[in-house]
Amino acid sequence: MNETKAWRGFASDNNAGVHPDILGELAKANTGHAIGYGDDIYTEQAKKLFREQLGPDIDIFFVFTGTAANVLGVYGITRSWNSVITANTAHMETDECGAPEKFTGCKVLTVETPDGKINPDMIRKHLHGFDFEHHAQPKVISITQTTEMGTLYTPDEIREIADLAHSSGLLLHMDGARIANASCSLDLPFRTFTTDAGVDVLSFGGTKNGMMFGEAVCFLKHGLSDNFKYIRKQGMQLASKMRFISAQYIAYFRNDLWKKCAAQSNAMASLLADKLRMIREVRLTQEVQSNGIFLIIPRDVAERVMKKYFFYPWNDEMSEYRLMTSWDTTEGDIDDFVKLLKEELKKKVLV
Amino acid sequence: MNETKAWRGFASDNNAGVHPDILGELAKANTGHAIGYGDDIYTEQAKKLFREQLGPDIDIFFVFTGTAANVLGVYGITRSWNSVITANTAHMETDECGAPEKFTGCKVLTVETPDGKINPDMIRKHLHGFDFEHHAQPKVISITQTTEMGTLYTPDEIREIADLAHSSGLLLHMDGARIANASCSLDLPFRTFTTDAGVDVLSFGGTKNGMMFGEAVCFLKHGLSDNFKYIRKQGMQLASKMRFISAQYIAYFRNDLWKKCAAQSNAMASLLADKLRMIREVRLTQEVQSNGIFLIIPRDVAERVMKKYFFYPWNDEMSEYRLMTSWDTTEGDIDDFVKLLKEELKKKVLV
Amino acid sequence: MNETKAWRGFASDNNAGVHPDILGELAKANTGHAIGYGDDIYTEQAKKLFREQLGPDIDIFFVFTGTAANVLGVYGITRSWNSVITANTAHMETDECGAPEKFTGCKVLTVETPDGKINPDMIRKHLHGFDFEHHAQPKVISITQTTEMGTLYTPDEIREIADLAHSSGLLLHMDGARIANASCSLDLPFRTFTTDAGVDVLSFGGTKNGMMFGEAVCFLKHGLSDNFKYIRKQGMQLASKMRFISAQYIAYFRNDLWKKCAAQSNAMASLLADKLRMIREVRLTQEVQSNGIFLIIPRDVAERVMKKYFFYPWNDEMSEYRLMTSWDTTEGDIDDFVKLLKEELKKKVLV
Amino acid sequence: MNETKAWRGFASDNNAGVHPDILGELAKANTGHAIGYGDDIYTEQAKKLFREQLGPDIDIFFVFTGTAANVLGVYGITRSWNSVITANTAHMETDECGAPEKFTGCKVLTVETPDGKINPDMIRKHLHGFDFEHHAQPKVISITQTTEMGTLYTPDEIREIADLAHSSGLLLHMDGARIANASCSLDLPFRTFTTDAGVDVLSFGGTKNGMMFGEAVCFLKHGLSDNFKYIRKQGMQLASKMRFISAQYIAYFRNDLWKKCAAQSNAMASLLADKLRMIREVRLTQEVQSNGIFLIIPRDVAERVMKKYFFYPWNDEMSEYRLMTSWDTTEGDIDDFVKLLKEELKKKVLV
Repeated sequence: MNETKAWRGFASDNNAGVHPDILGELAKANTGHAIGYGDDIYTEQAKKLFREQLGPDIDIFFVFTGTAANVLGVYGITRSWNSVITANTAHMETDECGAPEKFTGCKVLTVETPDGKINPDMIRKHLHGFDFEHHAQPKVISITQTTEMGTLYTPDEIREIADLAHSSGLLLHMDGARIANASCSLDLPFRTFTTDAGVDVLSFGGTKNGMMFGEAVCFLKHGLSDNFKYIRKQGMQLASKMRFISAQYIAYFRNDLWKKCAAQSNAMASLLADKLRMIREVRLTQEVQSNGIFLIIPRDVAERVMKKYFFYPWNDEMSEYRLMTSWDTTEGDIDDFVKLLKEELKKKVLV
Repeated sequence: MNETKAWRGFASDNNAGVHPDILGELAKANTGHAIGYGDDIYTEQAKKLFREQLGPDIDIFFVFTGTAANVLGVYGITRSWNSVITANTAHMETDECGAPEKFTGCKVLTVETPDGKINPDMIRKHLHGFDFEHHAQPKVISITQTTEMGTLYTPDEIREIADLAHSSGLLLHMDGARIANASCSLDLPFRTFTTDAGVDVLSFGGTKNGMMFGEAVCFLKHGLSDNFKYIRKQGMQLASKMRFISAQYIAYFRNDLWKKCAAQSNAMASLLADKLRMIREVRLTQEVQSNGIFLIIPRDVAERVMKKYFFYPWNDEMSEYRLMTSWDTTEGDIDDFVKLLKEELKKKVLV
Repeated sequence: MNETKAWRGFASDNNAGVHPDILGELAKANTGHAIGYGDDIYTEQAKKLFREQLGPDIDIFFVFTGTAANVLGVYGITRSWNSVITANTAHMETDECGAPEKFTGCKVLTVETPDGKINPDMIRKHLHGFDFEHHAQPKVISITQTTEMGTLYTPDEIREIADLAHSSGLLLHMDGARIANASCSLDLPFRTFTTDAGVDVLSFGGTKNGMMFGEAVCFLKHGLSDNFKYIRKQGMQLASKMRFISAQYIAYFRNDLWKKCAAQSNAMASLLADKLRMIREVRLTQEVQSNGIFLIIPRDVAERVMKKYFFYPWNDEMSEYRLMTSWDTTEGDIDDFVKLLKEELKKKVLV
Repeated sequence: MNETKAWRGFASDNNAGVHPDILGELAKANTGHAIGYGDDIYTEQAKKLFREQLGPDIDIFFVFTGTAANVLGVYGITRSWNSVITANTAHMETDECGAPEKFTGCKVLTVETPDGKINPDMIRKHLHGFDFEHHAQPKVISITQTTEMGTLYTPDEIREIADLAHSSGLLLHMDGARIANASCSLDLPFRTFTTDAGVDVLSFGGTKNGMMFGEAVCFLKHGLSDNFKYIRKQGMQLASKMRFISAQYIAYFRNDLWKKCAAQSNAMASLLADKLRMIREVRLTQEVQSNGIFLIIPRDVAERVMKKYFFYPWNDEMSEYRLMTSWDTTEGDIDDFVKLLKEELKKKVLV
């Protein structure tokens, strides 16, 4: 670690630090006492800002992690005999160590998808067995926006899934761990592809886009959140010094900081993708619609490049890797990375 | 909110803000990227500091909340058919909304205690039914140090409970949400009344003593933590940007910041207690051994004083209240509070 | 095992076998095929008989064990953040190995009672913390009729508890594992002290009174059982060949077989108690109101008598034991047991 | 219901009644008292008989339902952060209303299979992420023998899966709800394709083959069942009058009653399949290796035939149905059914 020239990589947007404005707001909120557990002016203000983004009738609850936001949000709208339908690539399925099953008791049913997105045709195969006591009762469809593959749903695509859900007695959950990147890339306000598109419960992420910690469970329809205060507490996610989550969101929404961060991240991914597409040995495996890039490169090359710019293997067999840009990625990082990659590829050829 | 003269009360030590050194360390750690989920140099260093305090063979896992530290720590050493024995005043019993039962499946058995402390004689009544499948199998004794009533265990008292636990095949858990106050008040290193006194698993708190968030689950014996990384993740408590918990603990241990904060808090409670004892209408109901004061005052007086210096009722029927001092409580706060209280008491008499 | 003179003891009413009329009904129901899982004529008829006993608007679900009836019944009317208030002697607290906590996630709060019964004054101490998210929300009061100590609630006593429950937003659950003994002893129909006394959910036992297996979860108010079919299935208690539970209840209610069995059991306990009261060295510790007798006798004497007539120690320290009579206990058993006890007591004196 | 000519259908083998020898044994066991919860001579003898079938070092625990046998058996060898890999057709996945997830907390991962069988190649895709805390840790492979599609694994196929499991640190679970049909059809003792083929935990069914109720969880390796007595009790599956499960298994194993029942059931399925194959409009969709037949027939024809001989639709879209024979199916049933089917098919053609 070198303070003058800080290391940056492409492992994940949560490897990045905290935007200075967020840090500054934490310091500002650190004045005197504030009633614990959310009954403070920062939390009140942060909720107000959320309502401006998502609609006047929503309920917001802050939690610490994205996994908690997903799991508790789903717990709030299910009973243990329900099932949740999601993409086989969903964070909820692949990266939460069974937290949804453990805490909700629900069955998680998956839909195979090539690009992280699911659609009514895919979902429908799980919509059966209603009223039949042997069968876990379908209750939630969960989609991720931006998906784990870096792709995006249009508002129409979301509306279609919402309609399917609602017409079948289900609810639509959105994992928005990277929702800011989606809003930027779609150039649409949050509300257009959440509340207004029929989403019922939303995990609104901040940590991956410049915050220190803190996510929000947003109930976008009236009546869904009645018991959620107990769920958050029993779910071990009630922050005693909650003002320090709230303050972050205050800074996050002020002057559209979230947009600046996500725009930078998206732009850098786009730039990187452009440069990668010009390298013959590189094959991109997903459309680059936000800040994630999936690519196939020779394994030994990847391993050498990783030593300087760390990133994760995605599919070992295919030699597929994932690069994530973040709010603090610079053009210099991109140039440097591409240069290094090219050098390593050349070495390989020479060998 | 007034920045020049910040409001402070006696509601809880978690109503206080963050010590400036902790905030400063957060800024310092905010440099470049760090691998997520704890594989970073800050976390490595913080763990090292913990080992200096608690012993070389311990395992440390950071989580977000005290409830999580307790619940997950207990989950790590139990199976669902076990029971946990604790005081009827324990946070685990009274203030975690059933989180221990929900997550661990264990039965929580309580022992009545007048002062928050339990002892072998009290505990023994629950040590039966071993090997009998109809009976939840006792597995953990959980004590709180400093107790929820502001009282303290001596190392010998802890050792006695540990011996009882171990001789019966149980383990000893300590909820150390206010462990710094205990260390200061006892004038003993942490290790003397934890690892060396036979404690097996410790929730080591920081939030109530000047940190922003972040607690540590400490396994003080080898072999107890083998699966804990999965438990923390499935328990929704794995911080992606973990360096920002770790950095706080680095500052917390540097130059004994924890001790300065706790010493101030304890001293102010002691001062306040001294002054309260001199007021005829006030009756203290617990020994003041750390930063909590329990007192009986007329209800209407309490309610008027509360408007300026907020604090919580403890036992409505008895008109008993709890005052907590914190790391930032000043002598001026004490003087002001006592003056106000006296005035309100006088008004009452005059009426 | 000797078929001509079968061994009988006083260990528990579930050590007795099955009444011949029940066995006969099982054979009668064993004709051809019946749709599985309860969609059969036997189940329809059994439910009809239950409605005759408990009221027209009740919903009945058969399960296998008393533990399951209690746990699933409570799960049907709670969420994980609720608490259940019960006697410290309740089966749910002492003899279900934590099944209620594991399956419902709820906190079980106990009330100390000398005779197995609880009353509003005892219960009230747990009725606080409503709406406070740190506190598990009280939702169910559970009483046992006949209690585990062999004592009985009058309908008025039940009504008082029901009124307390309902006025506080709670529901009243009754564990009726030995409900037939209560009905006989009180000389009142089931309905008088259940549905009509304000009980909301009832575990209606049969196994301890001459059935082979099978208990019923009865929802005595409309709207409480909407999801119970899923709960029973997910609770692993849905019988595929359900007709063989239903048929037992058909026989059980026909010609009041349940009453004959319970009356015999109660009468034998009464007779035994009368004879025991006349022995100087024996002290009865509970009123004998049904088929359970609690008594203190010298430990060595107990251990020698037990070899022939097995029964269980209840409180080791006090040398207290429990004797249970059952539907098949005879006067001869009583005479023989008392004779043996007297002989062993005399031996002790002589020594 | 007509006792002289009892109705029989092809809906499920659990629609059949109880073999008279089993009923007789229940009557025989109904003599005097027996210690509850399994400490009786019947249970001792039944376990001995199980050991003769499966090997001397196994542990056997009786439970009530097949769902319970599966769920509790898996709970015995997992922790909540584990995953269980099974066929997408497995009962555990499709017909247990989420009981495995609710009770074990584990993730259930599925493998698509055309015939109910899975193999190492299919399973391997789930064998990754070991040691990675974000990923539920694979711990159990569960296969069904006879599969839900009526097909069978050879001992070699099972051994291959067991080897894969064990070499990866997993255990092999077998759902043997119809294990008797497998043994008969393979003409192999149970032990050959369970204990000796590497199966670790077995659900040994009886209800679908002529018993009244009662399944057995069999731990085929030493050390796996240490805590199972608590699991069974907490799982609400500990029978108080356990002798009445045990007695059924005594009769079941005496003179190979199980084999006679399963052989009849298999033979009738074979006969029925032969006759169906000769009908042009009928297409069998699975190999008939035991007592299940899957066939495609016109929907309207099916619906008319069902009125007399009830059976279940399997795949609505394909107009696929399932016929199950049982221990009491007769040649007359087959002839009658086929005749009826032909008549209805002819009607269709004529229309």
